[in-house]
Amino acid sequence: MQAAYQEALKALDEGEVPIGAIVEKKGSIIGRGYNRIEQLGDATAHAEIIAITAAASGLSTWRLDGCTLYVTIEPCIMCLGALLHSRIGAIVYGARDPRLGAIDTHRYREELEGAYGFFPAITEGILARECSQVLSAFFRDLRMKKKP
Amino acid sequence: MQAAYQEALKALDEGEVPIGAIVEKKGSIIGRGYNRIEQLGDATAHAEIIAITAAASGLSTWRLDGCTLYVTIEPCIMCLGALLHSRIGAIVYGARDPRLGAIDTHRYREELEGAYGFFPAITEGILARECSQVLSAFFRDLRMKKKP
Repeated sequence: MQAAYQEALKALDEGEVPIGAIVEKKGSIIGRGYNRIEQLGDATAHAEIIAITAAASGLSTWRLDGCTLYVTIEPCIMCLGALLHSRIGAIVYGARDPRLGAIDTHRYREELEGAYGFFPAITEGILARECSQVLSAFFRDLRMKKKP
Repeated sequence: MQAAYQEALKALDEGEVPIGAIVEKKGSIIGRGYNRIEQLGDATAHAEIIAITAAASGLSTWRLDGCTLYVTIEPCIMCLGALLHSRIGAIVYGARDPRLGAIDTHRYREELEGAYGFFPAITEGILARECSQVLSAFFRDLRMKKKP
């Protein structure tokens, strides 16, 4: 999760919402990503999507079974869908997203498990305070800048 | 929808599951995409994601409000999430996906509308027979090929 957190700091440096992700397989990092929505002008450029695509590219297959995604914030429904399509084995996340979190905050899980026939193992709360604080600080600064 | 169907035929030509999509704004096509999962080795390479990214690239913004996505098959949860993030105004689809369809087949809609604070206008059933038939024929051929 430290590596995912380092990715989030890269997003912060570039003025993006600081969320980072990595894909791990057998102890090695095989994909990294951080949120680049504004920079790429692409609503799909979430940390998880970039990390999944990087990992798949390295493995030369879209199948990520046996891999674990680490991400600083609870994935949204788009990223959870992408993780299901990639057949990822496990998801570890830092802090919950009280607005758009699609694993434990909003519960689409039972319906999705029925449709896809599996669901990755979920672990939450790893480095939660750090992952959450960097995000809160970003939005606090943003609000300050917007004030006249 | 004819243009989205033509995209699906491109996928078919390349041995991919034949699903196609376009993004339209004020009567012009501003993004096209067809399913390229196997070719790109990327589980996120659905027709809708490629069309959204192409449209955003052309407009130089991730915001697709005022745009309509046409897609031959009911979007999955990943693509629906991407469409919500892009703030797309409307979704028009051909045939339902009885396995993974995330708009009318499985109902995540009320929960998602609450989380995102809006939901695109939905129209279904346009060119449904053609969109569905090309998909059924693809899977029938695939099963035939797999038989010894």
